[in-house]
Amino acid sequence: MNRRIYNFSAGPAILPAEVLEKAQAELLSFGGIGMSVMEVSHRSKYFAPVLEAAEKGVRELLNVPENYRILFLQGGASLQFSMVPLNFLKTAADYVVTGAWGEKAVKEAKKCGRVNVILSTKDSGYKSMPAPDELNFSADADYVHYCSNETIDGVEFKYDLDGKGIPVVCDASSNILSKPIDIEKYALIYAGAQKNIGPSGVTLVIVRDDLLEKVPENQFSMLDYRALAAQDSMLNTPNTWGIYLVSLVCEWLKEKGGVAAMAKINEEKAKIIYDAIDRSDGFYRGHADQPARSLMNVTFRLPSEELEKQFVTEAAASGLDGLKGHRSVGGIRASVYNAFPVEGAHALVDFMRDFTQRNG
Amino acid sequence: MNRRIYNFSAGPAILPAEVLEKAQAELLSFGGIGMSVMEVSHRSKYFAPVLEAAEKGVRELLNVPENYRILFLQGGASLQFSMVPLNFLKTAADYVVTGAWGEKAVKEAKKCGRVNVILSTKDSGYKSMPAPDELNFSADADYVHYCSNETIDGVEFKYDLDGKGIPVVCDASSNILSKPIDIEKYALIYAGAQKNIGPSGVTLVIVRDDLLEKVPENQFSMLDYRALAAQDSMLNTPNTWGIYLVSLVCEWLKEKGGVAAMAKINEEKAKIIYDAIDRSDGFYRGHADQPARSLMNVTFRLPSEELEKQFVTEAAASGLDGLKGHRSVGGIRASVYNAFPVEGAHALVDFMRDFTQRNG
Repeated sequence: MNRRIYNFSAGPAILPAEVLEKAQAELLSFGGIGMSVMEVSHRSKYFAPVLEAAEKGVRELLNVPENYRILFLQGGASLQFSMVPLNFLKTAADYVVTGAWGEKAVKEAKKCGRVNVILSTKDSGYKSMPAPDELNFSADADYVHYCSNETIDGVEFKYDLDGKGIPVVCDASSNILSKPIDIEKYALIYAGAQKNIGPSGVTLVIVRDDLLEKVPENQFSMLDYRALAAQDSMLNTPNTWGIYLVSLVCEWLKEKGGVAAMAKINEEKAKIIYDAIDRSDGFYRGHADQPARSLMNVTFRLPSEELEKQFVTEAAASGLDGLKGHRSVGGIRASVYNAFPVEGAHALVDFMRDFTQRNG
Repeated sequence: MNRRIYNFSAGPAILPAEVLEKAQAELLSFGGIGMSVMEVSHRSKYFAPVLEAAEKGVRELLNVPENYRILFLQGGASLQFSMVPLNFLKTAADYVVTGAWGEKAVKEAKKCGRVNVILSTKDSGYKSMPAPDELNFSADADYVHYCSNETIDGVEFKYDLDGKGIPVVCDASSNILSKPIDIEKYALIYAGAQKNIGPSGVTLVIVRDDLLEKVPENQFSMLDYRALAAQDSMLNTPNTWGIYLVSLVCEWLKEKGGVAAMAKINEEKAKIIYDAIDRSDGFYRGHADQPARSLMNVTFRLPSEELEKQFVTEAAASGLDGLKGHRSVGGIRASVYNAFPVEGAHALVDFMRDFTQRNG
């Protein structure tokens, strides 16, 4: 087995080696029962503790109060782009757009009703984040939606958005569990699991009880948060393997000291790479404005697309994988989620220095 | 490791041991790349051959013509209950209801438009199947929907329904890949993977090209078959681990001789158990009428609920797991999907005989 690869993928992304090792060890016989966790009924006595552990894990790590439900759904954040307005957009909804994912969320919401884009940083190239006092909510907004970390553009909110009475809905796919957040600021948080929580195919939803009362009657069952919550994520067969991995990741995070400890390590990793960018005399140019820089996705450019291509190829040959920027923006993207080791950040910076010396 | 358990779960269900062993062996380093298949981008060069193998596997096994698309979605058959009418119900739809799942499909379709239940066996307890000439389609039906095998009730269609020009939509969740079918009889087939294809969290959809043209404009992207097909199942991040398992199951099926060979083994397994029921002098009573008996889910009752409970408990203690009938109908259900071994059917029959001797 070769685990010397540093995996900078934006998602699906690196998982903790200890989690993978545990999953491997019991893949054929989960807890010694003679069956894989993939082979048992989601309603069996074998799976019930797995779902409970995943729920409890998220609840403890993020300090989620009792009046919030924790769900594990399917379809990724992209299905949430539709489910949120289908369930909660009655009059109008405010959207804050700071990157490509926020833009996609708007596109789906517009199919449901009136959308007010109360702030967009598109014209300046999705490089910045609004200050809290820049946001003016609409009087008739049913909710305000934002994306707390834009994976493609590499910009991140440094604060929990305050809805000032308007329910806040947040796509936290790429920075959930990377730092402590104040859950009570939110009405609903969703996140595709494949960055910081587990494998792809699971969507975490944390939703405040009172919001469930607003779901319209006659909603399609699988798109109905109230129905899904009433059955505790088991309205139909959930992604059992995915939920199992989530439970293991939560256990790993708790052993590592939880999200506060993670935040420190994540700051350290990001600083190592951003410092290398800033000290490169302009050879590497960070995409995001400094105050908006994401701790999860470090995006930067090189002097030419040719050099960027060469950078990605040579990095991969040196065991640094997944550094190619998203096809929509190009450049380089180093995703350094919770499971990504500090040594990997050092390895990247060493490679960057070497690359500059050879090509600068 | 203890693999002597015979797993009769209805879904998630038993997977081929060879598939699990392969997945286990390369869980930490897929194809020697130093990363798990769960950790690589769905758009990477590592995952592209996995998706291709899963698609090609299904296409070859079921002899799917080129004018059909093969998709791997999320949300299970239950989300298809909504997606089918959302995309194709314009005037009205015909539904054939022979069990609990067909009933659920009707419930969701009614939220979209006019539904004609052209045949239901509910009043007689979901024990029978219609003869082909019993079905009279509505002149204005956009499609006719049926469920080819009802997992809960244990009844199965023995023929591919002929829509006589009306597009046929089929929920084949629990008997797909268990026998050869004539794909060209269908406009759209869908199936939750967790019975015969792989783990839960993947939904197989086989859809004829011309149907995609009927998807209404402004459909929600994640519920839009045309958009999903245009991106080859990668409109957003799919369940990569699940699709990987599907590719391995397809490979295993081909090695075993494909679906024709499977059909023979499935007939043999089912016959072993049904014969034991029929020869029990009424101690065991099959739920389904003989001509409607499912080869996948053998459902039967005992003289009392007390005895059924005892049967399930003692069977589990003897290494026969997952025999409890669905909570909505009770009794015993022995699910014997492709991956379930013939020896397991014999083991069940031995146990049944012993149980009768002790309690008959």
